[in-house]
Amino acid sequence: MTPKVAVVMGSYSDVPKMEKTLEIFREFDIPCEVRILSAHRTPRETAEFAENARARGIEVIIAAAGGAAHLPGVIAASTILPVIGVPIALPVMNGLDSLLSIAQMPAGIPVCTMSAGGGGPENAALAAISILALGDKALSETLESYRKRLAAKVLERDSALQWKLTATEVREREI
Amino acid sequence: MTPKVAVVMGSYSDVPKMEKTLEIFREFDIPCEVRILSAHRTPRETAEFAENARARGIEVIIAAAGGAAHLPGVIAASTILPVIGVPIALPVMNGLDSLLSIAQMPAGIPVCTMSAGGGGPENAALAAISILALGDKALSETLESYRKRLAAKVLERDSALQWKLTATEVREREI
Amino acid sequence: MTPKVAVVMGSYSDVPKMEKTLEIFREFDIPCEVRILSAHRTPRETAEFAENARARGIEVIIAAAGGAAHLPGVIAASTILPVIGVPIALPVMNGLDSLLSIAQMPAGIPVCTMSAGGGGPENAALAAISILALGDKALSETLESYRKRLAAKVLERDSALQWKLTATEVREREI
Amino acid sequence: MTPKVAVVMGSYSDVPKMEKTLEIFREFDIPCEVRILSAHRTPRETAEFAENARARGIEVIIAAAGGAAHLPGVIAASTILPVIGVPIALPVMNGLDSLLSIAQMPAGIPVCTMSAGGGGPENAALAAISILALGDKALSETLESYRKRLAAKVLERDSALQWKLTATEVREREI
Amino acid sequence: MTPKVAVVMGSYSDVPKMEKTLEIFREFDIPCEVRILSAHRTPRETAEFAENARARGIEVIIAAAGGAAHLPGVIAASTILPVIGVPIALPVMNGLDSLLSIAQMPAGIPVCTMSAGGGGPENAALAAISILALGDKALSETLESYRKRLAAKVLERDSALQWKLTATEVREREI
Amino acid sequence: MTPKVAVVMGSYSDVPKMEKTLEIFREFDIPCEVRILSAHRTPRETAEFAENARARGIEVIIAAAGGAAHLPGVIAASTILPVIGVPIALPVMNGLDSLLSIAQMPAGIPVCTMSAGGGGPENAALAAISILALGDKALSETLESYRKRLAAKVLERDSALQWKLTATEVREREI
Amino acid sequence: MTPKVAVVMGSYSDVPKMEKTLEIFREFDIPCEVRILSAHRTPRETAEFAENARARGIEVIIAAAGGAAHLPGVIAASTILPVIGVPIALPVMNGLDSLLSIAQMPAGIPVCTMSAGGGGPENAALAAISILALGDKALSETLESYRKRLAAKVLERDSALQWKLTATEVREREI
Amino acid sequence: MTPKVAVVMGSYSDVPKMEKTLEIFREFDIPCEVRILSAHRTPRETAEFAENARARGIEVIIAAAGGAAHLPGVIAASTILPVIGVPIALPVMNGLDSLLSIAQMPAGIPVCTMSAGGGGPENAALAAISILALGDKALSETLESYRKRLAAKVLERDSALQWKLTATEVREREI
Repeated sequence: MTPKVAVVMGSYSDVPKMEKTLEIFREFDIPCEVRILSAHRTPRETAEFAENARARGIEVIIAAAGGAAHLPGVIAASTILPVIGVPIALPVMNGLDSLLSIAQMPAGIPVCTMSAGGGGPENAALAAISILALGDKALSETLESYRKRLAAKVLERDSALQWKLTATEVREREI
Repeated sequence: MTPKVAVVMGSYSDVPKMEKTLEIFREFDIPCEVRILSAHRTPRETAEFAENARARGIEVIIAAAGGAAHLPGVIAASTILPVIGVPIALPVMNGLDSLLSIAQMPAGIPVCTMSAGGGGPENAALAAISILALGDKALSETLESYRKRLAAKVLERDSALQWKLTATEVREREI
Repeated sequence: MTPKVAVVMGSYSDVPKMEKTLEIFREFDIPCEVRILSAHRTPRETAEFAENARARGIEVIIAAAGGAAHLPGVIAASTILPVIGVPIALPVMNGLDSLLSIAQMPAGIPVCTMSAGGGGPENAALAAISILALGDKALSETLESYRKRLAAKVLERDSALQWKLTATEVREREI
Repeated sequence: MTPKVAVVMGSYSDVPKMEKTLEIFREFDIPCEVRILSAHRTPRETAEFAENARARGIEVIIAAAGGAAHLPGVIAASTILPVIGVPIALPVMNGLDSLLSIAQMPAGIPVCTMSAGGGGPENAALAAISILALGDKALSETLESYRKRLAAKVLERDSALQWKLTATEVREREI
Repeated sequence: MTPKVAVVMGSYSDVPKMEKTLEIFREFDIPCEVRILSAHRTPRETAEFAENARARGIEVIIAAAGGAAHLPGVIAASTILPVIGVPIALPVMNGLDSLLSIAQMPAGIPVCTMSAGGGGPENAALAAISILALGDKALSETLESYRKRLAAKVLERDSALQWKLTATEVREREI
Repeated sequence: MTPKVAVVMGSYSDVPKMEKTLEIFREFDIPCEVRILSAHRTPRETAEFAENARARGIEVIIAAAGGAAHLPGVIAASTILPVIGVPIALPVMNGLDSLLSIAQMPAGIPVCTMSAGGGGPENAALAAISILALGDKALSETLESYRKRLAAKVLERDSALQWKLTATEVREREI
Repeated sequence: MTPKVAVVMGSYSDVPKMEKTLEIFREFDIPCEVRILSAHRTPRETAEFAENARARGIEVIIAAAGGAAHLPGVIAASTILPVIGVPIALPVMNGLDSLLSIAQMPAGIPVCTMSAGGGGPENAALAAISILALGDKALSETLESYRKRLAAKVLERDSALQWKLTATEVREREI
Repeated sequence: MTPKVAVVMGSYSDVPKMEKTLEIFREFDIPCEVRILSAHRTPRETAEFAENARARGIEVIIAAAGGAAHLPGVIAASTILPVIGVPIALPVMNGLDSLLSIAQMPAGIPVCTMSAGGGGPENAALAAISILALGDKALSETLESYRKRLAAKVLERDSALQWKLTATEVREREI
């Protein structure tokens, strides 16, 4: 069975940078297709991939690229599926070129741009899941639980910190 | 009937800037809820809106804001629905602050960021439509036609230009 | 007794980055509440914290966050207390996103923004102290002493440098 | 009676840009001292102003400047009072230089930086008021009412918009 | 006869912005093909254009685009001809997005990037001419004359200025 | 025999940064002249080099520089040959100064600017080759093969990844 | 008699932008040579000018340019005289390219960079005067008077403002 | 004897960053005063230093600072001597804040700004020397020799590279 999500990267070196995207999909038990396709080195295969994705059952495409990051926009140009773009930050320009090249799309062809660096890869998966969850009650419940766990972790850390600070204070007062 | 899309703006002065979003929805005959809610001035109402949107039948939320543009992220924090953020460019900083404040979300809470300026407002509507079209065959066909019309318009302009250039050349040669 | 100052961070990983804030408060013997609360992962708890802070005796809130750093603005939206924002610089964008997301607040809801990187965390504490010192003569004297010590340290270093340079010169002349 | 707030500007041409700061103070009926003092053209008078402000009864200083905007930092260097800096955006660099010159202060001497452009001048007054309100119950109530009015205005606009949109829809349906 | 140069623009609104490119070609009497083709709205036609350009006798392609300016890179991906990219500055981001989206190409697919704003459109034509002149002695002589005229114009202005300044000085002295 | 390509660098420390340029020329078996010439430290020699390059048989000049990177523009000022500029990113400003100093040339004197960082050095060689290939059928075939190999490598990586992902999945299923 | 100061501009269109430089020199009664010379269009004449300036009695050179602003650096490369660079802001990039192209000079060849926009042209003249004043007691006194007048103007404005504010207050109180 | 040059730094941690400034002065055998003075921590001493420098025989002041780098401007405000500013790049903002805070001075008070990073510290010394050399024939000859040595080193490296490349080629051919 074809998965509903495809994760496309412009180069093999982007795979470790997108590891967190794949982890989220594993955590949510959502199969996904992972492809290496370059807007610049394999333009024809990239266009074909985008043109056929919908007919093959793909519902959301995540595309990651850095520098003059054309991959998400080039894929969006050949499909009506929602396309989520992940700017990969390269050392020079530090992600500003990647973010602008993906976000600043002209009218007509949207790309849903995620953060450059930080939560970008995770959020690409979560944005795809929020879209898939619209027609899938079980998935939307799993997403809600995930969000509750995120919140719980913050609150837990907050409590742990309170405990630790109090302990420190007690120790310091004893000295 | 509650519409499936909500368009939220941080201030009344953003309404004309988001006019193209509403136009696209009118063109696609998709009803949408339009709200003025401020992450900073009406935080409680904004949170309530976001918390209840899904139960009320909303499927996609578009949020537009400028400067320290927190509205899309604040809405995304209180819903699992897909949230599309539109950076409104203010004169000072020229949209860079708006884009970064919306795009650079931390892991866990994605916002689908559109272009600052240019096609941002149109693309927000089109991104929402690409999501709604996943479960709506008629809409996906309308979206395909729209995209074909966009292409046709470019090709038409291309032809018109060829004709014009030839005519100019002929005139110039005659002189 | 509730402290008069609260230091809120968006994530546990920000604690070491805000260590200098806490050090200053320890140096001035000002008790402070330290909280982990996320504008995006725990929006409700964050709002509640901000809404209740004043009634609980808090007078100044320091909030630190990075990337699309909404925490200070979100807290400021739910309190009339002075809110001091500390932009945490993340590797990608190098603090520009954090600074703009905190500083560029719309009219109505101010956030007192500190430096991204460098003296930001220390200065957040010192700004809070300068506010608390308005109604506390002893504290304002301690703050004045602190500032005098800062000055003295610079002048001391200046003298030490003069001595060292002269010594070097003497040694060099002797060679 | 000396006012508790001073608003200092680097040049006479900044007066209209800071008009909204003065309006807020008029609205809250808070007398304020307005001064033209330049960190670069009148360094001695600026230092004297800052050194003496506290003894004269000033509690908060607002300083506005553009470009290599040294005024807020230079004032903060000579007082322990809270200093609020307002970056004035000049046409070239569009406020980025003003914001960075004010916000990026070194450890020891904080400046509470407001937004470059947009709500900066208003928020400077509101931040000062939030500080003064700590020791002034009546003022804190006035500030709360102000904030409630801000919220009410947003909600009113939201309602007006709903009414207008419905009316439009009705008209359109009738056609 | 097919011209040796093609000038491609992403949208009809770019035609007046590229007027100077066409003027230079007219001045050098070099026929050129002018096309409206969009990397995003007409991806297939754009790819076909690029794939066939060389066989049709085109030797240099100039591509202009703004925002997430993918056109030059997308054309370069489908041809081995030299591609010259002209960043069109849009009001928001002021050309930074256009420049970075065109210049920051990954290894393998070069785009010869011109200035965003200023001399970009003229220089695109002149860069193309410098390439065509390599195999065309007459053209290289015309290009040399053009460059000499540019220099002469500067020196002429310099002389005119000297004359004018002296005249002013004389007049002033007489007064 | 004089080579047809010259690679000029502003400083000896740029040699390792331009190693990939030289590698590409070795791979294509194109002899190239490599020079250390500084626009600022050896202006006369740089101008002489540029003035004489064409007469000596050079057809394309690649110039690399960082910071206030004037070398490519200074060379372009003294020759009608195509000049390809490679922005070398220095640690401070991270390449932004180098890119702008090379790309933003005034009308009349074009510089074909490559990427700052990433593929810049490789692409400089490939852009030069695309120019030389216009009059050299064998070279244009070699360039086509090179581009096909680039594409093949991407597709190979794509296949390898598919295989690896399937294997992982099988292993995971077996556990 | 040759003047001691030369003001060089890259293009005739820069003359009005540098009007304030000339005004300051007129105000200080310092004759200055004004030249139009382009680093890119007249490289040879520019180098000759720089090489000969010192022998002709010039002591300080002011050079203004915009975009990839190479003129100050190119002049500094051919003289040991102090060179003052004035970044002219062009509409696209808003002066950032001009500032970086002038300021970020490599070790060995300094350019004294003034502000992009704002006080840049005036300050270029004043910086030149501060240098000339080192060996000219009368000039240093004139410069001191100028600075005192600047200060006096600020203080005068400050007084005028106090008077105006008091008057307004009185009028308002009377109402 | 008081030296003619003073090098002022905002903090002791800047001393190693300014080591190259001192090296140049040692190489030119120019005594210089080195001071640690902070615009923010020791404003009074900094102003006094600047006010008295000229009377004490100082002719040029070099001031280095990072972040909201006010030191050069604050010194320039209290002296008519030429002031050379060196932007120290801090990790966050990577020198952009330092450069803008020093360069963007308002009309009336010039600061001669050097490069952020790279050659800044060396060039500060060389700019000071170019000023001192105006009234010192011996020094101007030493500066000329220095510049010739800089050029010679580049040309030497160029020759060494030619030799090395030829040798490599010979070796490669032999294999």
